[in-house]
Amino acid sequence: MLDRFREITTKLELSDYVIDEIRAGVDAIFASNDSNELKMDALKATGEDSLAKVLNAYLQSLGFNATYLNPRDAGIVVSDTPGSAQILEESYKNLYKLRDREEIVVIPGFFGYSKSGKLITFSRGGSDITGSIVAAGVKADLYENFTDVDSVFCVNPTIVDNPKEITTLTYKEMRELSYAGFSVFHDEALIPAFKANIPVCIKNTNNPTGIGTIIVSKKEPQLNPVVGIASDTGFISIYVSKYLMNRELGFGRKLLTILENEGISFEHTPSGIDDISVIIRESSLTKEKEERIIARIKEELDPDYVSVERDLALIMVVGEGMDSTLGLADKATHAFNKAQVNIEMMNQGSSEVSMMFGIKSDKVNDAVKSLYEIFFG
Amino acid sequence: MLDRFREITTKLELSDYVIDEIRAGVDAIFASNDSNELKMDALKATGEDSLAKVLNAYLQSLGFNATYLNPRDAGIVVSDTPGSAQILEESYKNLYKLRDREEIVVIPGFFGYSKSGKLITFSRGGSDITGSIVAAGVKADLYENFTDVDSVFCVNPTIVDNPKEITTLTYKEMRELSYAGFSVFHDEALIPAFKANIPVCIKNTNNPTGIGTIIVSKKEPQLNPVVGIASDTGFISIYVSKYLMNRELGFGRKLLTILENEGISFEHTPSGIDDISVIIRESSLTKEKEERIIARIKEELDPDYVSVERDLALIMVVGEGMDSTLGLADKATHAFNKAQVNIEMMNQGSSEVSMMFGIKSDKVNDAVKSLYEIFFG
Repeated sequence: MLDRFREITTKLELSDYVIDEIRAGVDAIFASNDSNELKMDALKATGEDSLAKVLNAYLQSLGFNATYLNPRDAGIVVSDTPGSAQILEESYKNLYKLRDREEIVVIPGFFGYSKSGKLITFSRGGSDITGSIVAAGVKADLYENFTDVDSVFCVNPTIVDNPKEITTLTYKEMRELSYAGFSVFHDEALIPAFKANIPVCIKNTNNPTGIGTIIVSKKEPQLNPVVGIASDTGFISIYVSKYLMNRELGFGRKLLTILENEGISFEHTPSGIDDISVIIRESSLTKEKEERIIARIKEELDPDYVSVERDLALIMVVGEGMDSTLGLADKATHAFNKAQVNIEMMNQGSSEVSMMFGIKSDKVNDAVKSLYEIFFG
Repeated sequence: MLDRFREITTKLELSDYVIDEIRAGVDAIFASNDSNELKMDALKATGEDSLAKVLNAYLQSLGFNATYLNPRDAGIVVSDTPGSAQILEESYKNLYKLRDREEIVVIPGFFGYSKSGKLITFSRGGSDITGSIVAAGVKADLYENFTDVDSVFCVNPTIVDNPKEITTLTYKEMRELSYAGFSVFHDEALIPAFKANIPVCIKNTNNPTGIGTIIVSKKEPQLNPVVGIASDTGFISIYVSKYLMNRELGFGRKLLTILENEGISFEHTPSGIDDISVIIRESSLTKEKEERIIARIKEELDPDYVSVERDLALIMVVGEGMDSTLGLADKATHAFNKAQVNIEMMNQGSSEVSMMFGIKSDKVNDAVKSLYEIFFG
């Protein structure tokens, strides 16, 4: 690891002092009396921490007024749970004081410190979550996040060539899109920024002048309310029918309880009067779980009929403001019909951030291409 | 009541013997030592019982080989719960013996007898339920039910003038239709016939030569898979959204539990990734219940946003076999668009017996007319 950093510092013409500091840090971790768990967390954090030090040194070498600030000194206080830090509320008050700083403050991501002063890493989301926490703490006007793509595309670029880019996206839209293949961001990383109402701009590290994609709480109504089309395969549907189901208080709740007992999250529950389907990710189900679930449904709900349908794909047509635009469902269903794809399921809530369609997996590319053509072509 | 019966028997030129028998029956009820509850049940049953006696006498006077058979003698054994009889399984074995009878057997509807020999009435469905039970017991080829309409229409005749009649309907289709305005039959009355797989023919008492509508378990695929369009108003939607709801195991189940605790059946639960709507009948909700439900949702589910949308209408496009027909969703959504009606909600399960659309109540007639035009025009 040190060789890699030396390569970087040499290229950036920085003094060896940075490398010496990193080496001293690693040596100190091994020499400490901390538990192996804590040592592991400290080692995992070394990469992010060292990069912050390198960046800070580089900024200074360019003449910027920059300071490296350790998360402890920044006041990022987390739970005492190595490998899965939870941010503590007091951090935000501590961070707010950073507003008084006039220099560029470089804070390494991915870790904070427990009240007893131990380094603890976050479980997921890496630096993104620290960025989001700091932005929320200082009540930033904007949180710029540099990643490796120019912007978020309105459709999966492996299905449609050179699709349009999304310039503005709401949090809700991003969630609906990220659900099915749009994994630019780790969702949980955005929670602090989302709660503090701070816009997030996703930019490309290798093309910083590109406009990127900005994620906001609210946006102006658009001429075309559809911002993107997401799709994912690997779903199954459990179908249950029973004469007079509709009159049976608690039927749906009991069905969901059976799934919950097996630790299964459901995705959607389209229903008729006497039937209900529960759509779940096939990956969340083992053969044994499936058998237990079906057996319990038969025993506890006494249905007329139960079946499992496999190889389903879900397609989400996403956009806030779809609720005030006439004819969008007409357009979307027409796209499926044009592509000769049968719609197995439809689901659209009163929010109308999205319309969900369930189809057979082998038709997903045909359907997505046809939808793209109709909404963005 | 006796005067009304005397009028009938006089017109049918029947002997006074029938009237004397009815009077003796009523006198016996008042003279008995039974509880008031049981006396009430016996009195309620007098109307149906007397009509069966009158019908039997009339059939005999026309020269038919007919017999009046009391439910006790027919073997209709029910639970000892006055006003809400539940049929006991042994009844079906008893009734099967009636197959040996060569004459027309006239059995009054609406009541059976407990094991201790007391007369007990059914709670709902009147004679329909007895007819359904007897048909199941004798394993009939057909259960003809005489009502006051020629047949079931494919759409509400108060919305569309002279709509088409439905000749064949499956049980599932009838259930979906009867849900929203097609209340020809009391659903529960059909359970025994449904379970025994017996076709039910609905005919008009005043036009017995009309072909009526036949309800079957299965039917051949049709050229137009849509059999009917049902609609009803008076629905509300409770909308709940929460960032990352989708990751929260048990969220939907908890929401349904809150409703169940208030005794509320939900109709549909369209959902997005981070939001879910529960559609319920406004009549099932009091102001107090609504307030308690909203308060519990806020407290127990910690959502970002909760709202209630009122004045919703549901429209069901119904037909078995819709699942194998391409383009039906396209046709349906096009009908809404043509009528300039915005679709607030869509829901279609994997069964595809129906597609459900939620719209604003004041647009329901426009939408139904447009759908009728497209599917039956």
